[in-house]
Amino acid sequence: MASMRVYLAGPDVFLPDPLARAAALKAICARHGLVGVSPLDTLEGGDLPEWSSLDEAYRIALRNEAHIAGCAALVANLTPFRGPSADPGTVFELGYMRALGRPVFGWSNCAEPFAARSRAFCAGAAAQPDGTWRDAAAMLLEDFPGMADNLMIDGAIAASGGRLVTRATPRAAAWTDLTAFQACIELVARALDPPE
Amino acid sequence: MASMRVYLAGPDVFLPDPLARAAALKAICARHGLVGVSPLDTLEGGDLPEWSSLDEAYRIALRNEAHIAGCAALVANLTPFRGPSADPGTVFELGYMRALGRPVFGWSNCAEPFAARSRAFCAGAAAQPDGTWRDAAAMLLEDFPGMADNLMIDGAIAASGGRLVTRATPRAAAWTDLTAFQACIELVARALDPPE
Repeated sequence: MASMRVYLAGPDVFLPDPLARAAALKAICARHGLVGVSPLDTLEGGDLPEWSSLDEAYRIALRNEAHIAGCAALVANLTPFRGPSADPGTVFELGYMRALGRPVFGWSNCAEPFAARSRAFCAGAAAQPDGTWRDAAAMLLEDFPGMADNLMIDGAIAASGGRLVTRATPRAAAWTDLTAFQACIELVARALDPPE
Repeated sequence: MASMRVYLAGPDVFLPDPLARAAALKAICARHGLVGVSPLDTLEGGDLPEWSSLDEAYRIALRNEAHIAGCAALVANLTPFRGPSADPGTVFELGYMRALGRPVFGWSNCAEPFAARSRAFCAGAAAQPDGTWRDAAAMLLEDFPGMADNLMIDGAIAASGGRLVTRATPRAAAWTDLTAFQACIELVARALDPPE
């Protein structure tokens, strides 16, 4: 059953009750024949990390890497996090799994395209004479039609055989609604084709 | 000389003259016996990408992945980009190279710790009774002493044998000053030990 393990990347670990959240995600995985692996699984006894020690941070990073390496696929919560893009820890993990050559999937509770989100986020962003947009530091805004985030993210998901599910969700439900996650897990299950 | 190739990850590709920027980074690499590889190198004839086609985005993503795979190390510009963290495309690439088991390095023109940056960025962030900080969505702010960004980033650099160079730089020079980059490249050269 090792091949049915799916790493659940996302800033969900920062939620007020991350163990309950992990349990909810794993329950949905289990209903589709998959074993969801949470970053919190790596902690002995289910204890939460101490967010105070640099050594602890390094240990968490290595444990997350080991967990990814032990999974057949990765599912990333790409809901925009403190800016126009996904949580950077999640994006790191997506890149890590992509390099291992296994399928990476994403889901997001925001359906607004990346370009529109970036324009809204960047105060002072302006259209240029050539039609592109640049921010106040004159740096280009990516503007590919239909992209959900930076092209490395969308590109990796597509190239790996994964899928990206986005769903317009009220902002207040951005970190609670699991409809897009469930739809994504259905696609993961179909791709990995676990035994009944 | 293939082992002396170093991938130059960063949002530098979004600067007004990205080819001039790539040339400046490569010149510093060359002075240290390294061959800097820019994401823009992947484009035939040095042309800039069309930022308008989804197929083009996917092609760029695959070319960047291939370039990373062809390098002995990765050096990431982790200067905060449109939020408290580094550019997500850069972070993806860092994770990708980390999974390949080769050293990853970072540099940043911001020396403010990640925790302080996150508190400043998140309107409504507040200290909790237990001493942790949470944002307006009640999501935890990482607070490890000395961390430059998300723990996956700092952790990967440390575990890979790489180094992270941060340097306080005036905001106006955040995308022009190459002092931290040069210091980082000196460390890369020492780590890879290229021939004289």
